[in-house]
Amino acid sequence: MGGLSEGLTQLLIPAAALLGIGFALLQWLLVSRVKVYSYPDDESQENNLIEGGQEEGIDDVEVVAKCAEIQKAISVGATSFLFTQYKYLVVFMGAFGAIIFLFLGSVKSFSTKSEPCTYNKGQMCKPALANAIFSTIAFLLGALTSVLSGFLGMKIATYANARTSLEARRGIGRAFVIAFRSGAVMGFLLAANGLLVLYASINLFKLYYGDDWEGLYESITGYGLGGSSMALFGRVGGGIYTKAADVGADLVGKIEKNIPEDDPRNPAVIADNVGDNVGDIAGMGSDLFGSYAESTCAALFVASISSFGSTHNYAAMSYPLLISSMGIVICLITTLFATDLIEIKKVSDIEPSLKRQLLISTVLMTVGVALVSFVALPSKFTLYDFGNDKVVKNWHIFFCVVTGLWAGLVIGYTTEYYTSNAYSPVQDVADSCRTGAATNVIFGLALGYKSVIIPIFSIALSIYVSFRLGAMYGIAMAALGMLSTIATGLAIDAYGPISDNAGGIAEMAGMSHEIRERTDALDAAGNTTAAIGKGFAIGSAALVSLALFGAFVSRADIETVNVMNPKVFIGLIVGAMLPYWFSAMTMKSVGSAALKMVEEVRRQFNSIPGLMEGRTKPDYANCVKISTDASLKEMIPPGGLVLVTPLIAGTFFGVETLAGLLAGSLVSGVQVAISASNTGGAWDNAKKYIEAGRSEHAKALGPKGSDAHKAAVIGDTVGDPLKDTSGPSLNILIKLMAVESLVFAPFFAAHGGIIFKHI
Amino acid sequence: MGGLSEGLTQLLIPAAALLGIGFALLQWLLVSRVKVYSYPDDESQENNLIEGGQEEGIDDVEVVAKCAEIQKAISVGATSFLFTQYKYLVVFMGAFGAIIFLFLGSVKSFSTKSEPCTYNKGQMCKPALANAIFSTIAFLLGALTSVLSGFLGMKIATYANARTSLEARRGIGRAFVIAFRSGAVMGFLLAANGLLVLYASINLFKLYYGDDWEGLYESITGYGLGGSSMALFGRVGGGIYTKAADVGADLVGKIEKNIPEDDPRNPAVIADNVGDNVGDIAGMGSDLFGSYAESTCAALFVASISSFGSTHNYAAMSYPLLISSMGIVICLITTLFATDLIEIKKVSDIEPSLKRQLLISTVLMTVGVALVSFVALPSKFTLYDFGNDKVVKNWHIFFCVVTGLWAGLVIGYTTEYYTSNAYSPVQDVADSCRTGAATNVIFGLALGYKSVIIPIFSIALSIYVSFRLGAMYGIAMAALGMLSTIATGLAIDAYGPISDNAGGIAEMAGMSHEIRERTDALDAAGNTTAAIGKGFAIGSAALVSLALFGAFVSRADIETVNVMNPKVFIGLIVGAMLPYWFSAMTMKSVGSAALKMVEEVRRQFNSIPGLMEGRTKPDYANCVKISTDASLKEMIPPGGLVLVTPLIAGTFFGVETLAGLLAGSLVSGVQVAISASNTGGAWDNAKKYIEAGRSEHAKALGPKGSDAHKAAVIGDTVGDPLKDTSGPSLNILIKLMAVESLVFAPFFAAHGGIIFKHI
Repeated sequence: MGGLSEGLTQLLIPAAALLGIGFALLQWLLVSRVKVYSYPDDESQENNLIEGGQEEGIDDVEVVAKCAEIQKAISVGATSFLFTQYKYLVVFMGAFGAIIFLFLGSVKSFSTKSEPCTYNKGQMCKPALANAIFSTIAFLLGALTSVLSGFLGMKIATYANARTSLEARRGIGRAFVIAFRSGAVMGFLLAANGLLVLYASINLFKLYYGDDWEGLYESITGYGLGGSSMALFGRVGGGIYTKAADVGADLVGKIEKNIPEDDPRNPAVIADNVGDNVGDIAGMGSDLFGSYAESTCAALFVASISSFGSTHNYAAMSYPLLISSMGIVICLITTLFATDLIEIKKVSDIEPSLKRQLLISTVLMTVGVALVSFVALPSKFTLYDFGNDKVVKNWHIFFCVVTGLWAGLVIGYTTEYYTSNAYSPVQDVADSCRTGAATNVIFGLALGYKSVIIPIFSIALSIYVSFRLGAMYGIAMAALGMLSTIATGLAIDAYGPISDNAGGIAEMAGMSHEIRERTDALDAAGNTTAAIGKGFAIGSAALVSLALFGAFVSRADIETVNVMNPKVFIGLIVGAMLPYWFSAMTMKSVGSAALKMVEEVRRQFNSIPGLMEGRTKPDYANCVKISTDASLKEMIPPGGLVLVTPLIAGTFFGVETLAGLLAGSLVSGVQVAISASNTGGAWDNAKKYIEAGRSEHAKALGPKGSDAHKAAVIGDTVGDPLKDTSGPSLNILIKLMAVESLVFAPFFAAHGGIIFKHI
Repeated sequence: MGGLSEGLTQLLIPAAALLGIGFALLQWLLVSRVKVYSYPDDESQENNLIEGGQEEGIDDVEVVAKCAEIQKAISVGATSFLFTQYKYLVVFMGAFGAIIFLFLGSVKSFSTKSEPCTYNKGQMCKPALANAIFSTIAFLLGALTSVLSGFLGMKIATYANARTSLEARRGIGRAFVIAFRSGAVMGFLLAANGLLVLYASINLFKLYYGDDWEGLYESITGYGLGGSSMALFGRVGGGIYTKAADVGADLVGKIEKNIPEDDPRNPAVIADNVGDNVGDIAGMGSDLFGSYAESTCAALFVASISSFGSTHNYAAMSYPLLISSMGIVICLITTLFATDLIEIKKVSDIEPSLKRQLLISTVLMTVGVALVSFVALPSKFTLYDFGNDKVVKNWHIFFCVVTGLWAGLVIGYTTEYYTSNAYSPVQDVADSCRTGAATNVIFGLALGYKSVIIPIFSIALSIYVSFRLGAMYGIAMAALGMLSTIATGLAIDAYGPISDNAGGIAEMAGMSHEIRERTDALDAAGNTTAAIGKGFAIGSAALVSLALFGAFVSRADIETVNVMNPKVFIGLIVGAMLPYWFSAMTMKSVGSAALKMVEEVRRQFNSIPGLMEGRTKPDYANCVKISTDASLKEMIPPGGLVLVTPLIAGTFFGVETLAGLLAGSLVSGVQVAISASNTGGAWDNAKKYIEAGRSEHAKALGPKGSDAHKAAVIGDTVGDPLKDTSGPSLNILIKLMAVESLVFAPFFAAHGGIIFKHI
């Protein structure tokens, strides 16, 4: 046991990452076999369309041409969004990188002299200035990786949506495989990239730090900060973007101009479609990448000041990276069950197939974790536990990881129960539409509140077990356990918006009713998986934040975070308030951004001749730009709140108040986030339940346009900013404040608490 | 300084209480001068009606008769409610009293031997069995006082409503004075009763305990538990009651039978009116009485184990009671400004007059607190501070009290800003109705979230200052400071529902348009003051809970409540979840109770001949009984959650998890409560803003029946359970769990934590 050599470890991690990237590229290749016409007059490619049989509508050149046109518009829109977003992000990265450098550099007045280590008192460590420099570099690397993850995810999603629509003409099973493979591309690219960049950074930093692992892994935490701050932009900006475009398109198109939803004449329709990719794909990707990076960094940091660090046991030190490597292999096997081993033959096979992915990956990963734990970890070692050394055994850490892994499954299944319209909670909400929108809203809010109970108990259990067995390291590993199957989680999550867009494209391109029914079935399952993805994101964020919080407490040298200390308590109660302040901001932002979109859409309808008649194309890119600019401007106040609060709390009120603040925002934010996401998901699916009319009960409430359906639409609209903007952004609020506090901890410990020092 | 003798203290407290009761009775006498006909054929009383001049409609015998009839129906309904409620409460009091006795008695196996004191180690204290017996007695006394407070409040409110309507015929100023005097009756009765019963109990308990003040004040904490557990029934049951009746009456009457709102033919209309009194009057009364009793008990308990207790300084020990006594005198003077010194001449005078009450009482009380602090407290003494003795000066404690007092004013004014339609937040919400119900709900929720910010900062500041200056005693005194002007607070709060009912009665009795405008103006100001009352209730509950929490931590002998201890952290995160679980329960309860009411109203319309034609009276009492039974049954699950959770947490998981649980539910519950109350209040007033149409903006949105108005009505209905059921009940959740933990602390410390002991 524990016999893994350093050389083999150095080999296995990049091998797993490269395997993941290779597998992603293979999936991409398979998706690319479905050809999308660029122009209907390019007849040389026509034959591609009829390979594989003469299924319905397969030779309709005009439909394919329309698909190509729509996809191109979405792709151009996505590029336009990214272009503008990058301009903002470069400025932010430069400015925040400078702040990190200046704050951390000032800890020891920019001295270049070596100094005694913080934890291994006997040894000499690199100067604080090195920490400032390398933390800044790590921050920039994390930010770039996060941006790259979002970019790649969006690219594959906008590449796959029309292909899924086209493949739906050949049958439900083939369409499912295309959508799922595209999701897998994103999942594997993200997981593998994150691992590879982190691995490479560690080895690069090692060239300078050498055997000073404490300093090395302290500065590596900047990687998590970079990842999460980009995720903040992705989630909040993307969330405001997609809902602004959605509401703006509907208010002018559907209400003022009386044209149908998703009509290509509407200038905002592409922005709306781009928004889905920006919010759900890129935002979720950055978010989960951030969680992954942070939990790994938190685990590595704690390990570096534990016996792994002092004995320089490289394989044990790399345990978190090895778990992630194993995760890539396990997810690869799991993916084959969906794409190759079990065939989808009918609509009702889809949801079980996606749910099976979760179960298979969790079961297999349990074995994988056992293997890694017994090979990489010594049978007995010590972990840093707030100044003490805690003696633990390798199977303790195994249980920590597995606790998180299975808690994720419980959260996923609970989320599904509360948001899928196959179960009674959503059906009850749909039923409450009989007495109007007010009862629908009341029942929906109550459902969201109730859906918090089981996730919180499973998070609490996971925290208790992993805390007791492995202290802070255990918590970080539980978080990583929940995220170890991130490739599969992201694949089924990304599958959702891809199918959603595919359905929209099928409708816009005028495909037949039967094909639309197929894409609708894909989409319905996707709604549930999107909700599950949000559940994972929140659950892992809670564990990650706690791990980061623990690392912060150690690094800031706080003895106890005692609630009965007034400094801590005021932090706790103000921290618990922050998610409300943040939600108030983001919800109002959606409103103001939507108003700007309304003005632009009106302007185009009034000033572009022939637009209403379909003779000229609207200026999609300008709507995309409006939405981009508005959302990025609107996201500055909430983003500022998240980024500035820890700096203010730490600098003026000190590390104890900041610790209270982090704990308060964590325990309060988790509740607000889960209830907001599930309430929104439930309203959306209650509306879909009435629209689909698959049961007697649903038929009695429908059809589209009935009073009950109108009430359901109101609930759905209320839920939009809750589930797509404020709710999921709260993950980032709690994570980002924690990792930021951790990175700035040396500064706060040295210079913080100005106000209390002078009272 | 500190020269107040024991004899004088013994005299001043009951004198102030009796003064308060006398003043309340005087107000009642003045209200009773307005005569309400019992029956139109009782002509001997007719002359009373025309005394004081021939104002409009003053001689309309039929109107007066109708008023009398409606008032009688409400009164009968109220009695019917109380009768059924008491049956439940007696059972609960007996059962819970037995639990208290058994749990506390078992701490030392029901031994009757004296034992060493917990804090003053050298001395001998009374046996634990005595604590069990006297805690049970104190619990029962607190419960009875709370019930009595609710009963008296409801009686005066149902006595005053028709009188206010009738007096409105003589002018706005006279109607205002009647409504305000009636509120004052309740305010002064509650404040004085609470003080008197507590004072009497202490002196009675002293007969047994003698100089064992530690034991005496430990058992007195049962008084707070009794008060708050009855408040739980009052708030939750009353909240479900009033909304069930409201929704039930509307769904059948307005929608199915097409009769106007508040029509006397509707069997549920009286239940609806009774509900206002049950929820807003009795519930709020019990709630604030509970806070008052608990903060006093928490302060007394801490004082008893501080130097006041060991030196047996009676006047200093009685400082909390003296503050409350001074409060009664100050509020008496303050009341005169509204009823006698400044006359209301026009509609726009009303709201400033009520707001002035808050300001005057706060300013005067600041002087009063200074006086009491310098007379009753020694210039220097020590306070118990988690095992240490903290040296404090009398002016430190003065600042603690004053901090709470002014924080209350800030919270009150902030609440007014966010819920009154005179300011932009509510007007923005009204404006959002232009684009439909969904935007109204989104903007309303965002407003509620935002309204949390300033109250939380002022509570945090108040906590920090009073904690630093006076440790736990300081927190308890800050809470008492906020509640020291409770008589005035309750007066302006009770004024609201009385005016609301008066408006309803005026409409039902068919009074003229001009009179209805007058009662509407009274009502509009009342909405704002009701919201302010809720703000006070929540703010004081937060401070009280923290004081009780601190007392619990001391009594359970917990060294530090360290967030980094996994036992504490899981308590913290589960505690933060409880307000959501509780809200989910209460919101769904409103739904189910409303459905039962719908059935009963339908039954009566179908089975009572001549009801629709107005020839026969409906069975009001049966609707009241349905509403009572349903609400009391529906309140058992949420009530059980609140009462059982601390017992389970303490018994199975131990005092540290319980401490985390209390802290978590406190910091999370405050946010949920404030945002729910303010969101609901804002929606209500946004609707009223559109209906009243007093500005160009409001006129553009209205009139009644416009699309914007319909959207506003949906928001108002969503807000009903938020602001009248789940929101205000959360005060009690956090207070009651804290006081229950305090009372059971000896048991948990001795026998708790079964699960962790065996792992």
